[in-house]
Amino acid sequence: MIERLAIVGVGLIGGSLGLALKENGFAKTIVGVGRGISNLKTALEKGAIDFFDTDVARACTDADLVVVASALSASGEVFKNIADALSDKAVITDVGSVKQSIIEEARLSLGSSFPRFVPGHPIAGTEKSGAAAAFGELFLDHKVVLTPLSETEDSAVRLVEEMWVATGARVRRMAPKAHDELLAATSHLPHVVAYNLVDVIANGDSVSPFLEFTGGGFRDLTRIAESSAEMWTEIVFANREEVLVIGRRFEKALSRLLDALEDQDCEAIHSLFQRAQSARKKLSVPESNG
Amino acid sequence: MIERLAIVGVGLIGGSLGLALKENGFAKTIVGVGRGISNLKTALEKGAIDFFDTDVARACTDADLVVVASALSASGEVFKNIADALSDKAVITDVGSVKQSIIEEARLSLGSSFPRFVPGHPIAGTEKSGAAAAFGELFLDHKVVLTPLSETEDSAVRLVEEMWVATGARVRRMAPKAHDELLAATSHLPHVVAYNLVDVIANGDSVSPFLEFTGGGFRDLTRIAESSAEMWTEIVFANREEVLVIGRRFEKALSRLLDALEDQDCEAIHSLFQRAQSARKKLSVPESNG
Repeated sequence: MIERLAIVGVGLIGGSLGLALKENGFAKTIVGVGRGISNLKTALEKGAIDFFDTDVARACTDADLVVVASALSASGEVFKNIADALSDKAVITDVGSVKQSIIEEARLSLGSSFPRFVPGHPIAGTEKSGAAAAFGELFLDHKVVLTPLSETEDSAVRLVEEMWVATGARVRRMAPKAHDELLAATSHLPHVVAYNLVDVIANGDSVSPFLEFTGGGFRDLTRIAESSAEMWTEIVFANREEVLVIGRRFEKALSRLLDALEDQDCEAIHSLFQRAQSARKKLSVPESNG
Repeated sequence: MIERLAIVGVGLIGGSLGLALKENGFAKTIVGVGRGISNLKTALEKGAIDFFDTDVARACTDADLVVVASALSASGEVFKNIADALSDKAVITDVGSVKQSIIEEARLSLGSSFPRFVPGHPIAGTEKSGAAAAFGELFLDHKVVLTPLSETEDSAVRLVEEMWVATGARVRRMAPKAHDELLAATSHLPHVVAYNLVDVIANGDSVSPFLEFTGGGFRDLTRIAESSAEMWTEIVFANREEVLVIGRRFEKALSRLLDALEDQDCEAIHSLFQRAQSARKKLSVPESNG
């Protein structure tokens, strides 16, 4: 058990982390940091934090572990603001969906604390946001990727690993670039596609009569297009290069598929659909186990 | 109540229709027609049909209403096979996801029965198939589109409407082309996109390590890629022209979106995401009501 944990940003992720860690006593005290008082009060009322502070430097003084769970675009600013306040043993981690850009910001700002910065990313979330949507089981059986660098201290990685294991998550280590490529493919591009599909079908018109006739498949497919437009703009920009690589690959494949339809090449389309169906079916197996 | 209903093809749709109609006594007798004995037996055991016949012409003789619920590619053959067996009062309808191509097949084959053919499409389904997956509530509160032509008899349309109302569905009438455009946008293109996305991310490899790291958003988004590759190849080919129109529109919009990302045009991407988020949120309202 650690003495003091600071969670900077108690939204869906930060709030759920607080709830999960309060349940199993990972930290004696959890302080929540944020700018929106009403969200902080919600987190406090739900029991995700023990108290809150709107001064990030003050809240992180004496913290054994600082989790930066604020918006991606705010992380650089947070690193700058806490650098001088951190004790020389404090471990810092984050939850950002993109790792390479966050690591650069941390390297620029954290100074002598940088070797105790453990870049992390819990692969969990819903289309909702804010402390009101937080729940302690969010990370249960989900994967958390840590991307430590060669200079990252082992003991720091172990502490962060321990924290995530306490939430019920399974921790994997990976290189930062491998993580960003993976997430571009499995999360960032799918969001781009879903937003784009809704926009094309609604034809820029949010009361398009087409939307009335959509079935469950369309609703499932586009559920993630309800996610925060601000957050996802930040994410795809932070991971711009990897999203472009996989995005252009998707664009070319789609173009070939439509060409095949135009050319009435039934075989090409059928074998692509079959390959995808068989790959997608494999995904359902772990799902049905829990 | 009608005397005799024939359901040709007792898969997910045909089987669920039988179950829904048996529950409220719409027909005295329901005969199921198909080629696969084991599927027919499943339908019989579940109570979706009263008996079955593998001879489609014999089963449709004396039927007051024939529902063609076989695979899209088999419908033309079914029309040909039943044309001579139909009584001169028999009403025929279908459940195909594409209407213009089915209407042409019916016009070619049904002869003097064509004015009693009511093209129909229940907008309901799951990624599963076969009588085993059928359930009587499949159509409850779902929309069914009927696309009668100027020569279609009013009394025929009314009977088919009555049948769908008995399943709990809400019936809408529409022109065949309007239906096909609508479905290309809200169902056929989304399937193409989901199959393509899975294939690109798995990189043609069904045991791609990437798939292991996908979250709930990706799973929801690609659930429809588990649908039958055969069936969806048939559907996109039957509605080739409309799928190409909306597909090329999606392709261009995606290309512009990736260009904006390349050019670091944050504002363009943010406003597209926002438009889509707001359109998608409107869809959630009826969902939460039931």
